Amino acid sequence: MNNATTPITETDLIPLARSMGEALAKAGLLAATAESCTGGLVGHLITEIPGSSVWFVGCAGVYSNAAKERLLGVQHAMLLAYGAVSAEVAQQMAQGALPLYGADVAVAITGIAGPGGGTAEKPSGLVHLHLSATDGTERAERVVWTSDRRGNKLLSAQLALQMLLEFGVLS
Amino acid sequence: MNNATTPITETDLIPLARSMGEALAKAGLLAATAESCTGGLVGHLITEIPGSSVWFVGCAGVYSNAAKERLLGVQHAMLLAYGAVSAEVAQQMAQGALPLYGADVAVAITGIAGPGGGTAEKPSGLVHLHLSATDGTERAERVVWTSDRRGNKLLSAQLALQMLLEFGVLS
Repeated sequence: MNNATTPITETDLIPLARSMGEALAKAGLLAATAESCTGGLVGHLITEIPGSSVWFVGCAGVYSNAAKERLLGVQHAMLLAYGAVSAEVAQQMAQGALPLYGADVAVAITGIAGPGGGTAEKPSGLVHLHLSATDGTERAERVVWTSDRRGNKLLSAQLALQMLLEFGVLS
Repeated sequence: MNNATTPITETDLIPLARSMGEALAKAGLLAATAESCTGGLVGHLITEIPGSSVWFVGCAGVYSNAAKERLLGVQHAMLLAYGAVSAEVAQQMAQGALPLYGADVAVAITGIAGPGGGTAEKPSGLVHLHLSATDGTERAERVVWTSDRRGNKLLSAQLALQMLLEFGVLS
């Protein structure tokens, strides 16, 4: 899925958002998102589908560390120990979104969209995603995209939608 | 700006998002959004600009009434009296986003993106936007777009970005 130029657009992801919504609706599930590097993109895509209020309650866009703590209950010590872009913080974001929205399933996205901001240990394009559900499901994904900022955000959104779709289909 | 077909795309709005960010950064202001019908689109557009964490703290995507109450402190009585798509609720959403994010300025968007969901009193395409700032600024906008769902969301996002830009330039 990686590509040096922006590989997809928002409209390319609408069929996936529709399939995801149909799967969640069929399973009677309510979803929420917790978005750092995607900034609200996943929520935007989910709500492109008419009737999405049946399966979607909202996205917590948390661009600052303070917002991650205040809205989602991410622990300050976790941010200090692991950094905002980490599997640990992604998990806390997803777990925090469940009670915040009263959702059955939540997916969190935190990463370095680029082009700057990367380090040797955490390169530009690194994104951690985490899905948590009230049935106890936990799924973590770590990816390093090699697209531009726009592409990295879109690829992250695509994976988030796929994770929700797969959870819905299996539920 | 209205058009029966989708008049603009996400990428068309990136220059406006960049100008807005430059204006807020110059004024030393932190912005947040509270998004119902746009679902996170404004946050997505703002974060398309590298370095946007300097002027943007996050978007509260509140697609359900319960989320509007829980995250933003919108009063249950207001939702019952005026409905989620109203000037009163838009104002409470913007005012609630300021302390939630520790922002200097917040813009809220609540509307009926369509194609369904409209009534004679509140037609499909009706959107209320409200900007509140910690300096006491309040600005309300009521629009009725005549595009499709996607276009209505994009036109709403464009107006939200313009409101933030104008506030930043005047600050």
